[in-house]
Amino acid sequence: MALQAGATSEGVYTVGDYLLDRLAGAGVRHLFGVPGDFTLAFLDHVQAHPDIEWVGCANELGAGYAADGYARLHGLGALCTTFGVGELSALAALAGSRAEHVPVVHVVGAPTTATQAAGRATHHTLGDGDFGHFARMTAEVAAAHATVTAEGYAAEIDRVLTEARDRRLPGYLVLPADVAAAPAVPPAAPLPEHPGVTDPAVAADFRDVLTERMTQASTVTLLADILVSRLGAEDHLHRVTALGVPHATLLWGRRVVDESAPGYLGSYLGASSAEDVRAAVEDADLLVMAGVQFTDLTSGFFSQRIDPDQAVEIGGEAVSWDGRIFSPLAMANALDIVAGVLSETGAGGRGMTSAHPTDPTTDPTVIAVAPGSPLGQESLWREVADFLRPGDIVFADQGTSFYGMADHRLPGGVTFVGQPLWASIGYTLPAVLGAALAAPERRPVLLIGDGAAQMTVAELGTLLRRGIPAVVIVVDNGGYTVERVIHGANEAYNDIGTWDWVMLMRAMDAAGSARGIRVDTAAGLRAALSEARESAVLTLIQAVVPPQDVPPVLRTIAAAAANANRPKD
Amino acid sequence: MALQAGATSEGVYTVGDYLLDRLAGAGVRHLFGVPGDFTLAFLDHVQAHPDIEWVGCANELGAGYAADGYARLHGLGALCTTFGVGELSALAALAGSRAEHVPVVHVVGAPTTATQAAGRATHHTLGDGDFGHFARMTAEVAAAHATVTAEGYAAEIDRVLTEARDRRLPGYLVLPADVAAAPAVPPAAPLPEHPGVTDPAVAADFRDVLTERMTQASTVTLLADILVSRLGAEDHLHRVTALGVPHATLLWGRRVVDESAPGYLGSYLGASSAEDVRAAVEDADLLVMAGVQFTDLTSGFFSQRIDPDQAVEIGGEAVSWDGRIFSPLAMANALDIVAGVLSETGAGGRGMTSAHPTDPTTDPTVIAVAPGSPLGQESLWREVADFLRPGDIVFADQGTSFYGMADHRLPGGVTFVGQPLWASIGYTLPAVLGAALAAPERRPVLLIGDGAAQMTVAELGTLLRRGIPAVVIVVDNGGYTVERVIHGANEAYNDIGTWDWVMLMRAMDAAGSARGIRVDTAAGLRAALSEARESAVLTLIQAVVPPQDVPPVLRTIAAAAANANRPKD
Repeated sequence: MALQAGATSEGVYTVGDYLLDRLAGAGVRHLFGVPGDFTLAFLDHVQAHPDIEWVGCANELGAGYAADGYARLHGLGALCTTFGVGELSALAALAGSRAEHVPVVHVVGAPTTATQAAGRATHHTLGDGDFGHFARMTAEVAAAHATVTAEGYAAEIDRVLTEARDRRLPGYLVLPADVAAAPAVPPAAPLPEHPGVTDPAVAADFRDVLTERMTQASTVTLLADILVSRLGAEDHLHRVTALGVPHATLLWGRRVVDESAPGYLGSYLGASSAEDVRAAVEDADLLVMAGVQFTDLTSGFFSQRIDPDQAVEIGGEAVSWDGRIFSPLAMANALDIVAGVLSETGAGGRGMTSAHPTDPTTDPTVIAVAPGSPLGQESLWREVADFLRPGDIVFADQGTSFYGMADHRLPGGVTFVGQPLWASIGYTLPAVLGAALAAPERRPVLLIGDGAAQMTVAELGTLLRRGIPAVVIVVDNGGYTVERVIHGANEAYNDIGTWDWVMLMRAMDAAGSARGIRVDTAAGLRAALSEARESAVLTLIQAVVPPQDVPPVLRTIAAAAANANRPKD
Repeated sequence: MALQAGATSEGVYTVGDYLLDRLAGAGVRHLFGVPGDFTLAFLDHVQAHPDIEWVGCANELGAGYAADGYARLHGLGALCTTFGVGELSALAALAGSRAEHVPVVHVVGAPTTATQAAGRATHHTLGDGDFGHFARMTAEVAAAHATVTAEGYAAEIDRVLTEARDRRLPGYLVLPADVAAAPAVPPAAPLPEHPGVTDPAVAADFRDVLTERMTQASTVTLLADILVSRLGAEDHLHRVTALGVPHATLLWGRRVVDESAPGYLGSYLGASSAEDVRAAVEDADLLVMAGVQFTDLTSGFFSQRIDPDQAVEIGGEAVSWDGRIFSPLAMANALDIVAGVLSETGAGGRGMTSAHPTDPTTDPTVIAVAPGSPLGQESLWREVADFLRPGDIVFADQGTSFYGMADHRLPGGVTFVGQPLWASIGYTLPAVLGAALAAPERRPVLLIGDGAAQMTVAELGTLLRRGIPAVVIVVDNGGYTVERVIHGANEAYNDIGTWDWVMLMRAMDAAGSARGIRVDTAAGLRAALSEARESAVLTLIQAVVPPQDVPPVLRTIAAAAANANRPKD
């Protein structure tokens, strides 16, 4: 099967081509990564592929986060790095994709099988002749993994891609340089669609039980979370919410519903919730939970008070209710049943009124800004919320940005992305690059603290290099405010270096077309956002706020985090 | 043992204090890292420790590389990150320390034992209740590891620190937040010194055999490499080289000898060596190899031709020679025996003349620079070599920088650091931060390509924040030239974004005191280096050279790399 030594693979259909065709068939249009000598020849095939574009990133962690952001918007993402040094640098990103249920395929270019068999001290290895260290490490976070071979490539690639796609979790493929170049046969047919899992008898059973209970329920509330989106069941959820049933989401799952729609109550955060949201969720006669995963940061450290008797839990492939498991029953089918029963019984109209809590973004008494009044967290997020428009893609980093936006209702059609389980600060900067490439017709908005932006700053250069017209708001508060509010408010370890973000952006902007504005007043921010609204190029706004100023929701969560980290008896 | 819930550990001697005392006792004076909520309370103890200074880095990969650079100069390094997101981001650095035999202790702040026991979806985890994923991943690269407990802390910490110190390999300690705060007893005595391993009878045996062979040998050459430094045997090596025996090093081990001393031949790179060096090494009647590890990139892809019959291989704890193993015999003792026998037999004076090959840095005909002639790789490295002074610490990134300097002899007392086995581009930028803090009286010089510098650029901010008076030379050639010469010379995947490095440095320089100079001629570089020589602040020189210009040594190595990555029959 092997080519002649020194032969190029030009004109020969290779295993690498097969992999690219499979990725393209699964919808991948952009491959993120950093080149390395074990991947270079494969990258020729990437360049030549008609449907896949190479997106070179500044480093591998950035590539991993970009692929994750791409997958969140696009359904499947992919990155390609080199053995050892490259793949391990992206491992925190792949672990984040695992934690947050994001299907990303990581392709790693490896030394040839001959080099591996020789077992010598090869660069990018530990030098001990063991070429399996990194695959074993990655197996802890990848849901499916394989080392591709010249003989078994089709089954190996198909299995990993299918599992990543269908389970919405990361996959990992090691591609030795010689295997990538080995001759292959193109796929004869597309990857099979994910077979439906639902058993019709189980579905009928669930419908009967739900109908009986809905008929009796005086109040019904829906609580939805991120897994609805991850499992591709958003449209089915929207059939439920369109019936006007009162509904809330966890902060993680903000993107799954239209927050401007009737029936939307707000965010549920356990004991940290607004009282009307808390009561609607916890006191409902019947609570339908769709794709909910309570995590410490989204539940006020597990302060939710949900009565299992009253809660129908819709998971990916099963429904749990009052000790019963309805399985196999796909989330989409379960949600359709909920919509049908709500419609038939009229239960959706019952229950809580869907009166919106006061929305600061539309309350003129709150919006009035004294010209020149210093910018603070409250005015910052109010102005940002007012700036958002339907269709925007908002990435809010896991600090004051994510929690500062918690109090503000989003316009319809906004995709709001945070990362509250993996909670890696700096994630959003590369991720918004991926999201912007996945949905080029939508406006990308990045909300990120200065400490977080320093983590992954290099990919700001990639945003500029690719001409992404993002609105980038760097919250300049001199350090890790999310840490200050947990512990060490004035300690030096929570300080960071002071950077001029506008100048830094200009240094990375070879085209010289992007805009940069530093603001420290609410009026200044409003003017800068007006400018950004009209702009077709990247606009970076360095928004200066006091280091100790903290959004109220974050203060509550941080107190719980501090308590969780204390020793207990 | 546990404190009251909510109690602070003020005034109580804790497990965290014990760890810090042990690190300080092993010589650690700086702890690199990024704070996280699982480490914050522990960081209070770091701040309070009289002998250890916290060095906050922009991201964890930077902290890991900084700790590695620190350890290379200082004997032991340490970093502290938070669970999951933090530690995985530094994992590529820890793997590099493993590959390159650098003792770095990685302390990871983890959720409390109570949180772990509860098994819930905690931030910075995969959300599956398994808190062991990351420790299992790290066990692949850490030579010693432990999860510290409130009961067994002393034995666990002592074991990991001792193994890291004595084996010169990385160690890993997971420190749950409650365990860090648990009461402890200070160490009663310092960690025991590494016991000598040498068996006197084995040493005597080796001396006898060596004496007999040395007496007969017509030519003796010494070949030394990096492990001499890693195992702390440099002084013993110098007793050998001081006798005038002809000696060479591999590129990895350049730092272990004084290249200005009599007897120094040059760098040995297998078939890629200068002919006189190749002959002196391969044709010697007796070749003494000290701490040599042939790797692909330092041996011209295993092109060394060493006759095992003629080669005495001195390893860490054994000597191999002609099928015999002398063990246990520590490298330091073995080198002392070599020095003794050479002295007694006079064999060191025999053999090759130690004539230096023409040294371009002192050859006036080569140094003459036409004013305004464009800068190229040849003139770049010639000027840099001329600029170096005894005592400088030079970090050369694994690209044109490392190989460009290969042709130039270093002044005595220069520490030259590359990373040719792990070969992670971008490593040197954070590493020079660590080295500068380890040896503040010496001048740090960083030689790095633009593609590499983009990888880890954030730590340039840390260099500036800490006022490190480094000379930073960014080789601006528009991308990954080290990859271009292997494959894809003109392919877009080897291009990077164009940055204005001088402006970027200024954006990170809050004090406004650092200097930045862009040069594209040899005369301009010489003037900039003159300015840097007089400077007490950081000086960044953006040195523009053509993208396709490549140092000759790198061209040879790259051809071998390209060949190794091709499929073979």
